[in-house]
Parts: sequence; C-alpha cells; structure tokens
Amino acid sequence: MTGLERFSINQMTVKQLSLPELADACTGLGIRHVGLWREPVQSYGLEATAKLVRDAGLTVTTLCRGGFLTAIGPAERAAALADNRRAVDEAAALGTDTLVLVSGGLPAGSKDLRGARERIADALAELGPYAERHGVRLAIEPLHPMYAADRCVVSTLTQALDLAERFPAHQVGVTVDTYHLWWDDRAPEQIARAGATGRIHTFQLADWTTPLPEGVLNGRGQIGDGAIDMREWKAYVETAGYTGPIEVELFNDGLWARDGREVLAETAARFVEHVME
Amino acid sequence: MTGLERFSINQMTVKQLSLPELADACTGLGIRHVGLWREPVQSYGLEATAKLVRDAGLTVTTLCRGGFLTAIGPAERAAALADNRRAVDEAAALGTDTLVLVSGGLPAGSKDLRGARERIADALAELGPYAERHGVRLAIEPLHPMYAADRCVVSTLTQALDLAERFPAHQVGVTVDTYHLWWDDRAPEQIARAGATGRIHTFQLADWTTPLPEGVLNGRGQIGDGAIDMREWKAYVETAGYTGPIEVELFNDGLWARDGREVLAETAARFVEHVME
Repeated sequence: MTGLERFSINQMTVKQLSLPELADACTGLGIRHVGLWREPVQSYGLEATAKLVRDAGLTVTTLCRGGFLTAIGPAERAAALADNRRAVDEAAALGTDTLVLVSGGLPAGSKDLRGARERIADALAELGPYAERHGVRLAIEPLHPMYAADRCVVSTLTQALDLAERFPAHQVGVTVDTYHLWWDDRAPEQIARAGATGRIHTFQLADWTTPLPEGVLNGRGQIGDGAIDMREWKAYVETAGYTGPIEVELFNDGLWARDGREVLAETAARFVEHVME
Repeated sequence: MTGLERFSINQMTVKQLSLPELADACTGLGIRHVGLWREPVQSYGLEATAKLVRDAGLTVTTLCRGGFLTAIGPAERAAALADNRRAVDEAAALGTDTLVLVSGGLPAGSKDLRGARERIADALAELGPYAERHGVRLAIEPLHPMYAADRCVVSTLTQALDLAERFPAHQVGVTVDTYHLWWDDRAPEQIARAGATGRIHTFQLADWTTPLPEGVLNGRGQIGDGAIDMREWKAYVETAGYTGPIEVELFNDGLWARDGREVLAETAARFVEHVME
C-alpha cells in the first residue's frame, strides 16, 4: 500500500495481536512504524521486544505511557516517579525518543484541579532531566475534558504547553491527539505555539464518534467514521513544522472484537484515504 | 428549611413529579423558584402551568430550552427559528425572562464546527430582537465538549460570549452551568467577562461524577457527590455581580428511579450544605 511512509500503528488499536503478530502484519502491509504500550512490552519482555521490532525493520515512534503524577502522599508520589523513571528506561531500550505522559486525575475526594496540575509540574522537574540523560522526551498528552476528574487533569493543549514550557523542549513537549483536541477552537493556534518551540513530540489520530460508550474509554472512532477533519489537523501540525510519523491510536471495543490483521489493514487504508490523499 | 431563598429546582431533576406534584412539594419545602422544560409544560398546558406556578407563589427562573440552530437546509432552519419563537412566547407566558438555548450539534455528515457556530450567530440575529419584544433574554448554554458533535457546538464560555457579545445583553447572554464548565481553567475569567456586560442570565449547578453512563447524558451528579467545588463557582458568579436564583439541574437515571419528593428534599438539603453554608 502506498502512502504509509508516515503511518504509525499504535499497538492499542490492534491489541488483540501479539507483538510477533503485529510485527509480521506490519511487514506484510509495508508499515514502518509502531507505537508501543508498556504492559504488553513488559509481558513479552523488553529486550525481546526491542529485538523483534529491530529485526522487523520497525521504528518505535512512542512508548505509552508514563504519567499519573497527581498523587498527594509522599509514598505514592515517590512510587509514581520511580515508575516513570522505569518508563523512560524502557523507552530508551526500545529505541524511541518519546514517552507519552497521561497526567492523572484528581486524587480521591479532591476537588482541586489547580493543585493537581501544579504537582505535575513538580514531577516534571524531576523527570525531565532524567529523561534527557536517557535520550527520551516527555510528551504531555492533554486528554479530552471528559477525563478531567478520573484520568487526566490536563485538558487542553494550552494547559499542556503551560506545563511543558517551564522546561527545555528536548525534555518536555506535548502529544497532539485529534480525539482530545478537535472540539477546541484554540487548539490550532496552540499547535502553532507548540511547533514554534519544537514541542510537538508526537501526533496521534482517532475520530470522534457518538454515542459514547459507558465509561467513555473505548469509543474512539476509526479514521473517517466520525466528526473530525483529519486533513485539517494534519495541516495544522505540518504548518507548525511537524513532518514526523502520524500514529493512529484507537481504543474501540468493536475493533478489538474483530480480526486484528483485518483491522490493521483497514486502519492503514483509512489513513491513506482520509489523511494522506 | 432555611438557606433556600436562592434555590431553584430545575424540573428535569425530578421529572418523575407531575407539575402539580412539583408545585405542591416546593410549597411544602419552602422552595420559591422552579426552572421548567417545554415538553412537560406543553403536556400540562401552557396557561394551566402559568396559573399553577402563580397560585403556588413560585417564580419561573428559566425555560429550557430553545436552540438547535445549526441546520444547513433553509426549510430546517426556518422550522428551527419558528420553534424558537414559540419557545420565547412560552417563556413570556410563564413569566420568566430567560430562555436557555442549547445550540445544536453538527448536521449529519458535517465536520465543520466553525460553520455551525456561525449559523448560530445568524439565527440569534433573528431571534434576539424577537425575544426582546417579548421581554425574554436568550441564554446561550455552553455544553461540555463531549457534546460538541451531537448536541452543542458551543463548548466553552468563551465561545458562548463571543456569540452573545454580537448582540445587546438584554437580548443574548449566557448560562453558566458548573457541569459543563468546571474543567476549564479559563471559565473563571470568562465569568468575570460575562458579569461585566450583564450577561450571566442564569447559573445552574450539577456535580461531576464518574464513570459516565453510555451516551453521557444522564450521569449528572447530585450536588456534593462529585469533583466540583460548588462554593468556588458560586463565588465566581457573585464576584461577577450575579446574585440571582441558583438552579440545580440534574439528569440522572438513579435519581429519576427514586421517589421524586424525596429527591427534591435531598437536593434542597444538598444545596444548603454544599452551596450556601
């Protein structure tokens, strides 16, 4: 299939495939890039995964995910920092320069969004230099505001950049994901802001489809099925200077119930049709 | 119960109660204000409802809802405008000065949020003067971004004010609803902006609880059950000059399954505890 030079398949999109199945399917379709997740990598083995993707000629565009940095208690905070240092180590071992961060939600019983956001900055001050020493950049991912309470208190690209810009760009940047940002009329100007300081560390796609499922986690739409004009968002990041890989990351119960190789081929075809052509 | 002087119960919170039951329950609890919805009012009869609430000594704080102004086709647009003029007439007949507007989502197949928002402005230019002649103010309600595709393309208070400020404040203002705005770090400054031009036409409360239910419509939390600091938001609107009634509007399958009078009493008690004390 032509038009896949910049396509990266985020592993979560086809989580029904094992890592060897994924690598094999990518080779068959001419897919050159993958985004990986820590849990399946740990299950398969970090070094084994690194060898697998290397042997398949795949580059790892991102590792998902670090973060969850909003805890208040010292023990919990120390544990979160230690886990994020491990995530940096894993990213480095896999040969990717980008670790995606999902910041974490409000601690139980808390109603203090501002305080939670400030604790993320405190954590980044520790993690940024550590990541730099390992050749890894942290990419704060603003998640859709519907996740503000229980998953990610960073809800807009503006907030993500306000955090990131306290640190050097080679330590901390952002993840631009259409699913989380498409509704925000300020996002285009914020993409320009991110590009101007070299902070677009990864660009991810998912489409917005409704109705949302219970829990609103696993309803990310296949590219072309929803409300988002993918070419428009690609143009925003390209105008801002980003010409790297484009990851498709779908959490979708319907896609997960299907044959993974079929979903991968469909996703690649949708990418070519709705993003590249 | 003391502390209920500013409390208004939005009818949807206890939709299991008929209008006479609601009026009777309000009288029994010392509740002075209600927010009404068009459909149950039409079912009971417009004039009958107006007499009922008048006889019970209740003021109608808002009528919900007009809007749905994003259609593209001329026939659909004309029908929407006609329906909104009827909504203005109904508001006037009920003695309320505020009609809440939910703007509408993307038309089927459209991915053009900006165009949809612009069509709302076109509609307001027709409806604003009509409302003014009937002593009614339109209150654009920004809905949470999770509704941007299918329900309301106006997702932030900033966007709502950008629309409203094209018109006189006595024609078009905004609805400030904690459920929709709580995640937005810009909302406090935008509340100040709204207050400075006299555009806070109503203030509504619901709490944010998770997990969200399928379709994300009927999971608005009882006051005090969720992530929102109600006193903080009350302080924002008061600092901005708003000292009017405060509506509690909950869409919640769990509350609807219970005895309506019990839910009303609970909601009033929660209001006193979490908002006023």
